[in-house]
Amino acid sequence: MREGAAQPLTASDAAYLLHSVDAFLFDCDGVIWKGDTLIDGVPQTLDLLRSKGKKLVFVTNNSTKSRRQYATKFHSLGISVSEDEIFSSSFAAAMYLKSIEFPRDKKVYVVGGDGISEELQLAGFTSLGGPEDGKKMVDLKEHRFFKHDKGVGAVVVGLDPYINYYKLQYATLCIRENLGCLFIATNRDAVGHMTDLQEWPGAGCMVAAVCASTQKEPVVVGKPSTFMMGVLTKEVI
Amino acid sequence: MREGAAQPLTASDAAYLLHSVDAFLFDCDGVIWKGDTLIDGVPQTLDLLRSKGKKLVFVTNNSTKSRRQYATKFHSLGISVSEDEIFSSSFAAAMYLKSIEFPRDKKVYVVGGDGISEELQLAGFTSLGGPEDGKKMVDLKEHRFFKHDKGVGAVVVGLDPYINYYKLQYATLCIRENLGCLFIATNRDAVGHMTDLQEWPGAGCMVAAVCASTQKEPVVVGKPSTFMMGVLTKEVI
Repeated sequence: MREGAAQPLTASDAAYLLHSVDAFLFDCDGVIWKGDTLIDGVPQTLDLLRSKGKKLVFVTNNSTKSRRQYATKFHSLGISVSEDEIFSSSFAAAMYLKSIEFPRDKKVYVVGGDGISEELQLAGFTSLGGPEDGKKMVDLKEHRFFKHDKGVGAVVVGLDPYINYYKLQYATLCIRENLGCLFIATNRDAVGHMTDLQEWPGAGCMVAAVCASTQKEPVVVGKPSTFMMGVLTKEVI
Repeated sequence: MREGAAQPLTASDAAYLLHSVDAFLFDCDGVIWKGDTLIDGVPQTLDLLRSKGKKLVFVTNNSTKSRRQYATKFHSLGISVSEDEIFSSSFAAAMYLKSIEFPRDKKVYVVGGDGISEELQLAGFTSLGGPEDGKKMVDLKEHRFFKHDKGVGAVVVGLDPYINYYKLQYATLCIRENLGCLFIATNRDAVGHMTDLQEWPGAGCMVAAVCASTQKEPVVVGKPSTFMMGVLTKEVI
């Protein structure tokens, strides 16, 4: 067996685990599902844990969905999960801005899915970019001046299947030219399991692009940063 | 005066420079032009150097154009320059593949402008991607399997104003799954002067994205790597 590979629990270890642990944290992509396919044994395991009165939390670095959208996905797969049991990096980005008391009159530019925009809105922040900039192009002709909103005080970058040059330039200008503008990454995963058959470029891909054009490093709110875990242990468990 | 800032040559230094140097290498973006606007004094300086019998070489990290396309740009600005006097990083990418005797039956996937594709074709290589993939989208639904050409033996990444997720996934799969596939960057500049008024995300932005998704580092053929200078000193000067 490969060194460090997971091994099935023995019956006594499993009994000890169930006895000694009150809350179970699960990753989602590759743990609960692959793409839209549930992984074998997951519903039975979750049912068993719930029957023992355990607290379940689903923690995902995937920022494309909001907590509401994740709950809908769980339900579509036949698993009953409430929004409060879900901690996504999209939610973490909004929580981070709350934790630092990001001014409400400042805006947030989003490179990523509508999950981020939705979480920001729910937390009371004004966002722009995201899906609405997905089909925008830039025309690099003479005297072209790319305008950006000087009121943007933070840029949040997550996995973005609609990444384009327009968004990269917008994010870059905000971070480089708006005084004190924050650069927040939902996570820096190299790849994600967006479908069941393959790995796809992850948020790390978009984050690295913005790091390169701005020559700045982001605050990372998802794993392996411990920000999400800090919120979790304080507010949920 | 800022320490290290350029200072005008004294008359005696200029005379010594003209006397002691046979070949002059110029950068283009920000030196010859900004966007499509010629910088003051450039035509006069080039004319003076030519009248003294000096060899001129125009070296640019900008890979969006081929040498032919650069010559056309020079002509449109009223400056007579031959293709042989131009060394672009698009040309350097093709030269690099020649220098390592990249097999002719292997293909090259391009993330970048048609300048790269044109230089590859002129050097006898088969390329795919580039502008033809500029408007392609990916539909991340269940059971979606992204196919890529197993015959791709090198990926060349340069500045790409039409960067998208399709190209990022294509490049990533080639580098990760095609045995021995090369990863070549035209350059890693953070920004470029694509118009006269602003800086725009440069090739470093696209290169960093592919580094992040593949967890690999590229061979860089443009500046500050010395590959282009090596070819230049051997073949031109």
